[in-house]
Amino acid sequence: MNIIDIIENKKTGNELTKGEIEFFINGYNNGEITDYQAAALIMAICINGMTVDEISDLTIAMANSGEMLDLSDIASNTVDKHSTGGIGDKITLILMPIMASMGIPIVKMSGRGLGITGGTVDKLQSIPGYKTDIEIDEVKKNVKEIGIALISQSANLAPADKKIYALRDTIACVDSTPLIASSIMSKKIASGAQNIILDVTCGKGAFMETKSDAKTLSKVMKNIGKNAGRNVMCILTNMNEPVGYSVGNSLEVVEAVKALRGDMTEDVREIILTFGSYMLKMAGLGDDLEENEKKIVKEIESGKAYKKFVELVGKQGGDTSYIENLEKFEKAPIIVPVVSNKSGFVTDLSAELIGRASVDLGAGRLKKEDDIDPRVGIIVCKKTGDKVSKDEIMAYVHANDPKKADEAVLKVRNAYTILDKKVKKPSVILDVL
Amino acid sequence: MNIIDIIENKKTGNELTKGEIEFFINGYNNGEITDYQAAALIMAICINGMTVDEISDLTIAMANSGEMLDLSDIASNTVDKHSTGGIGDKITLILMPIMASMGIPIVKMSGRGLGITGGTVDKLQSIPGYKTDIEIDEVKKNVKEIGIALISQSANLAPADKKIYALRDTIACVDSTPLIASSIMSKKIASGAQNIILDVTCGKGAFMETKSDAKTLSKVMKNIGKNAGRNVMCILTNMNEPVGYSVGNSLEVVEAVKALRGDMTEDVREIILTFGSYMLKMAGLGDDLEENEKKIVKEIESGKAYKKFVELVGKQGGDTSYIENLEKFEKAPIIVPVVSNKSGFVTDLSAELIGRASVDLGAGRLKKEDDIDPRVGIIVCKKTGDKVSKDEIMAYVHANDPKKADEAVLKVRNAYTILDKKVKKPSVILDVL
Repeated sequence: MNIIDIIENKKTGNELTKGEIEFFINGYNNGEITDYQAAALIMAICINGMTVDEISDLTIAMANSGEMLDLSDIASNTVDKHSTGGIGDKITLILMPIMASMGIPIVKMSGRGLGITGGTVDKLQSIPGYKTDIEIDEVKKNVKEIGIALISQSANLAPADKKIYALRDTIACVDSTPLIASSIMSKKIASGAQNIILDVTCGKGAFMETKSDAKTLSKVMKNIGKNAGRNVMCILTNMNEPVGYSVGNSLEVVEAVKALRGDMTEDVREIILTFGSYMLKMAGLGDDLEENEKKIVKEIESGKAYKKFVELVGKQGGDTSYIENLEKFEKAPIIVPVVSNKSGFVTDLSAELIGRASVDLGAGRLKKEDDIDPRVGIIVCKKTGDKVSKDEIMAYVHANDPKKADEAVLKVRNAYTILDKKVKKPSVILDVL
Repeated sequence: MNIIDIIENKKTGNELTKGEIEFFINGYNNGEITDYQAAALIMAICINGMTVDEISDLTIAMANSGEMLDLSDIASNTVDKHSTGGIGDKITLILMPIMASMGIPIVKMSGRGLGITGGTVDKLQSIPGYKTDIEIDEVKKNVKEIGIALISQSANLAPADKKIYALRDTIACVDSTPLIASSIMSKKIASGAQNIILDVTCGKGAFMETKSDAKTLSKVMKNIGKNAGRNVMCILTNMNEPVGYSVGNSLEVVEAVKALRGDMTEDVREIILTFGSYMLKMAGLGDDLEENEKKIVKEIESGKAYKKFVELVGKQGGDTSYIENLEKFEKAPIIVPVVSNKSGFVTDLSAELIGRASVDLGAGRLKKEDDIDPRVGIIVCKKTGDKVSKDEIMAYVHANDPKKADEAVLKVRNAYTILDKKVKKPSVILDVL
């Protein structure tokens, strides 16, 4: 077997065997196969596609390329959650403490932000002292003691996926369903959870622009899960506008804490209740979804979910006084309102443009090496379906530089479409698969 | 403009602009674009193809990536000849001295052998003392004095093509008509000839297996020539069996010298007369092809063509006593006959298998770094259409090692198909375009 024949096979549209896929992943991971050979094969995959079996084989080979976590000594029915990426997506910060508080052992590994999509690790690190990179033994100890650990992805988790992901970015091969599905699922499988619930975002701010593409991706990922012996659920969510009202790292932590105290926007509430009730069901803690939703509301109202978050922050070295007194979070030096220049209804609020504006302010990264400023970002006061008057404030820009602030104001205003006709608030949950 | 957008364009099947193609070639040539980005783009070209305009733009960009020779101070109507590669193809060694002797100024740059295809430079270097890498000023001086120089390709001729060619080999992108055509034509255009005659070999031992593929390649190359202001002719030749009777470096020089003295096989004669008569026409030395053929025969019979070759060898530092006394060429230490194990007719003699056997004996290279032995190779006594008796000698293996000799005997025997039915000698010239 040699890599040239494997490339030739995919180039001519043949199905690769499990052996060929393993040969490629192992060879690329250990450096025997060069970047340019991998690039050629990935391009051929991108153009000619992959069968369901190939995608499964690729995913499992990538998962096996590094550490494979075994969470069986923590619990037999762990549930992991993952989002395919959104703008202002602080759901993990809210949902996971609630679930832990309700008895599901949570080991959640998250990534950093890249491009317009934020990352849970960056958000957590805006809490002074919070450590995201802790050893797996400590993770297991913490989970035994308090039921939850929110950490950064282990460096040795699916290393072949990391190499391929970095390469795809430079060769225009990001938008390929087989490659997106195998990238997500390889990390989830290596992370060890028995049950995986996936938030498949769809819309202009997401990998998948249309519902039909998101459905295809979901089906592929469910199938990979089946072949790997994991239980996978996909919930399609709307990512045309940002989730909640804040975009930016400490701004989103503040929103998440408020949500855990019971104060949340309608879209966040819908996502939390839907995902939460399915997670409880997957974990064997209740089959009645409506009943589960009620229990979740109760868990929040009782203050237990919020307390679990405070406990988590403390356990991972964070300064809990920031959580208890949100005013302690340092504010950006410049906060400028964005006012509407006409009256009407918000018919569209582009998550993509808000995401870009937020990255340009310094809340995200264009390249992996970029530094972020935890203070900066955008607060949206008006969302799709809202009425707005001329000169009314639609959003606030939080900036560290007057020039960047001015530019962001223009970009945020451009993100809004305001028309005379009234539109309905969009549904957040689009489908459950 | 950036390379990722260019790759994306070709990936989605769009036509690249001239500017995009130049951006890629210049950036790859100067190292700003990485090998893996080039590999991805080349794979996308391989799968999605290129339009006629894209192929011309690619060719001209590659030609412009290095030295562009100007032969106008040598002659106004130079003719270059190139073969797309064959087994036992010593046509350059025979044809070019004849043409020079008849008044066409010849500057012919050749390559080394790679894979099963031999290279004229390797063959010339089997003549003791013959220098193939001489400076362009000396080349021009030699051509003014004796009308011919047979040299190796300048290192700085179409360097972008060299980089891309080397890459294609490692990523299974050799068999792409746009890439084959642009590779050949970029070097020919950079070499400066006004008229280019191409021997497009077709059959199992060639790039193009079928006549239809060879025709497509020819049309593409003619079109590139038109766009670059060069006059291009393509002659399709049969490469199912080796050209002439010898395969191997000094063995082929010996055959070429004998041919120049008038002693040549039917297939070689047909190729020499056809190509030669068209070359004379292209150079403005006679429009009547039949008349041209007669002149060529006369040129050989007079001994002038042979003398031109002796003169060439002397001029480029070679020991002419070897040409005058062919017995001086060192013979391989082991010469073994290959006898037929049955009676019948040769219905097929695989150029590809003979080529492989010859490479394995040490006459060619699998990798660029491999050394070659000028003495070894294969002499075929029987070709397609010939009658053969049981135990009759069909070929000789010239080897430097008993084990290799034994293996080669088996391979050569396998290259022959012997059946009861008589078949016609195959045509050598398949088409003229």
